[in-house]
Amino acid sequence: MNDIIKHLEEDRDRALAQLVEFLSIPSISAEPAHAEDVNRCAHYLAELLKADGFQTSVEQTGGHPAVVAKRIESDTLPTLLLYGHYDVQPAKMADGWKTEPFAPVVIDGKIHARGATDDKGQLFCHIMAARAHLKARGKLPVNLVMLIEGEEESGSDNLDSFIDANMELLSADAVIISDTAQYGGGQPALTYGLRGLCYLEVGITGPNRDLHSGSFGGAVQNPANALTKILGQLVDDSGRVNIPGFYADVIPLEQWERDEWAALGHDAEGLARELGVETLFGETGYTTLERMWARPTLDINGLYSGYSGKGAKTVLPAKAGAKLSCRLVSGQDPDKIATLIEARLKNLLPPGLTMEVVRLHGAKPVLLPTDGIYVESAKEALETAWGKAPVMIREGGSIPVVETFANKLGAPVVLMGFGRPDDRAHGPDEKMHLEDIFMGAEAVARFLELVAIVDGKRK
Amino acid sequence: MNDIIKHLEEDRDRALAQLVEFLSIPSISAEPAHAEDVNRCAHYLAELLKADGFQTSVEQTGGHPAVVAKRIESDTLPTLLLYGHYDVQPAKMADGWKTEPFAPVVIDGKIHARGATDDKGQLFCHIMAARAHLKARGKLPVNLVMLIEGEEESGSDNLDSFIDANMELLSADAVIISDTAQYGGGQPALTYGLRGLCYLEVGITGPNRDLHSGSFGGAVQNPANALTKILGQLVDDSGRVNIPGFYADVIPLEQWERDEWAALGHDAEGLARELGVETLFGETGYTTLERMWARPTLDINGLYSGYSGKGAKTVLPAKAGAKLSCRLVSGQDPDKIATLIEARLKNLLPPGLTMEVVRLHGAKPVLLPTDGIYVESAKEALETAWGKAPVMIREGGSIPVVETFANKLGAPVVLMGFGRPDDRAHGPDEKMHLEDIFMGAEAVARFLELVAIVDGKRK
Repeated sequence: MNDIIKHLEEDRDRALAQLVEFLSIPSISAEPAHAEDVNRCAHYLAELLKADGFQTSVEQTGGHPAVVAKRIESDTLPTLLLYGHYDVQPAKMADGWKTEPFAPVVIDGKIHARGATDDKGQLFCHIMAARAHLKARGKLPVNLVMLIEGEEESGSDNLDSFIDANMELLSADAVIISDTAQYGGGQPALTYGLRGLCYLEVGITGPNRDLHSGSFGGAVQNPANALTKILGQLVDDSGRVNIPGFYADVIPLEQWERDEWAALGHDAEGLARELGVETLFGETGYTTLERMWARPTLDINGLYSGYSGKGAKTVLPAKAGAKLSCRLVSGQDPDKIATLIEARLKNLLPPGLTMEVVRLHGAKPVLLPTDGIYVESAKEALETAWGKAPVMIREGGSIPVVETFANKLGAPVVLMGFGRPDDRAHGPDEKMHLEDIFMGAEAVARFLELVAIVDGKRK
Repeated sequence: MNDIIKHLEEDRDRALAQLVEFLSIPSISAEPAHAEDVNRCAHYLAELLKADGFQTSVEQTGGHPAVVAKRIESDTLPTLLLYGHYDVQPAKMADGWKTEPFAPVVIDGKIHARGATDDKGQLFCHIMAARAHLKARGKLPVNLVMLIEGEEESGSDNLDSFIDANMELLSADAVIISDTAQYGGGQPALTYGLRGLCYLEVGITGPNRDLHSGSFGGAVQNPANALTKILGQLVDDSGRVNIPGFYADVIPLEQWERDEWAALGHDAEGLARELGVETLFGETGYTTLERMWARPTLDINGLYSGYSGKGAKTVLPAKAGAKLSCRLVSGQDPDKIATLIEARLKNLLPPGLTMEVVRLHGAKPVLLPTDGIYVESAKEALETAWGKAPVMIREGGSIPVVETFANKLGAPVVLMGFGRPDDRAHGPDEKMHLEDIFMGAEAVARFLELVAIVDGKRK
């Protein structure tokens, strides 16, 4: 590998200059005014990968285009699918940025720009790694297909249909994604679990119009009173979701997971300070990390009823509503949970009111393999690059595409993140440490070599 | 009285024509664009009363003017204070009116216009009654002071200070107000009780910013979850307010009240149908009328937290809030109740959250005398005019000025309403039956005669 590492190091300045160009394009997928920038960014990326030796195309999806880059070395080599995204979250100085979000600058060894870590910077680790292999040896150790979409930050609305229409192109032995993070700076991690989601809206209707609370107060069920009484019973004082059957399918945490996470020395007091709360709170019997990563929740995401302007309006509201969602963990099915929640809500409804429940969104939880050649190779690559063994962690959020790939391609998915949890993805002053970019590139370069298995043997 | 009744009948057409003019002026006090109309209406009214023989003035209040009309006949006669208002609620065709709200028309014996019953039409009964006395006999049987304000529908912001500044002018032996209603068409009523109000806003804050419900769900108290849990405990399943001490000062309903109201044959099923609910609901052990008129309540008037737009946003909100208010009954003090509610709310707050409670509005409940010369005279006057004895009722809402008069003037207040509950005050197609206007005028004319007591004897 020394030849490849040497090329990686020699390429640093040029790669960084290109990353600055890449980050300068405001490819904000959610803002129609930036549609042309998104398109320009796709073409910039395709040209860059073409120059490196990939067969590239900018694919129309119905929304913003996806960039596909492909290099097939040999039928006998395994094929890797890299998924990433070149679009970014909105950003403007008024949000509190200290530097222009689309004028990247390096300060104290960190590159500051929207997309620095999510996901342009992490994506660049893969580009640098592939380039080093190609420069040093004229070829890749595996076949590599890159699918880099332009709508991740605006809902990936066209991704599923694009994948469905391109199953042959995308079929791979494994999928690798670098859109997560290290556990903390200097502590590399592989993410093997993501929570799912079951998101509902509940609306309660009482009288056929808003009533005067003086004239009618005491005569009818108040839908806002009823809503609070119903929702207030869904989570008990110990933080446990109080819905019959809710925990029935939960795959319990294994002892090794609890041990490994406990050894991370998570600073709960520091988190409480950072969030500005006197104390954290959650299901009794689990640590904060366990609760955030591997236990299901029920959170109210929105409440609305009656009058919420300034001052007093004596209305007895005709309607009250809430958005609520459960984060789900492995074993739980979003549709089944939605049915349980709906049954519980309706069961708690008193007479004199009607209720409507709408299912807004669902995502299956994901538990990826924690062993096998791809995971083992990723561990080894990270350990060599960082000088420290990675930890196996989960994440509390959902990345729907992971479930899509795991399900549709039936291939192992490796979530190898190089950024840090405090890199401020989606926030002002997003950044990525240059050392993380370089170590990430090295890790990918080593990973490609390690997974180049032919006939059960490393090449 | 025959001479006076004859004059009343002869004056009908002219009075009705004047009422149409009065109703044609869009004196909408809440809408700045109508400020000149409000002013014009005050002057119209002052001129009309001057022509009838009153000493009138349009008094500046800091807001819309008040009309004061005065006729002192003799030091030996009792002095009555009539309170009413010439301003009206907003109204436009787009709200669902069948006829132009400020182009009064008589259809099927009812005059349709904004203000028809609230309060221009009811006020006109007094004008017609006084005029009949003056035409028939050249004088009134009592001294009469009218205070007709122009801000009742926009909060009476300047009324208290105007009263304070004019205590001598307004001092009276009794106050009469016609801004309530009959119990139902054909069943006259005197209203002797009004509920009070204690209106609060509660805000709960958790983390210092909205969090991603995936990354942080399970780590912290969700303020929306906590708000529902807290508010959901404030009223029990039997409709009783679950706040320690809440009922301690409540003056219980007397048996005569319960008997008299039961005899009214209130149609609870009809009310449920009209409100579009399957069943009514309220505190166990009380009839619907008792609950609406004479039992305290706790209603949530507004809820707000997190995301309430279309679709799903996975936010764990930093804040959640509610507006809530209690209707209070005789014996209960708004400040004391606010203190009890606040203590209960704070007592239910779990660790990890902070709470702010703001007191937005309070009004004392009112229980007026149900006997004495003024009430007895009102009963007799109504019975003669309607051919049916009035019932003694209460109302669920608050009319703050009643408490102000009862308190500041120390005089009995008679609430004698001539409209009907279904006259659609504040709604589209507001109306008043002409027969109610004429019977109301007759009742007032008789009332003036009946209360003209000198040296303990009717004149």
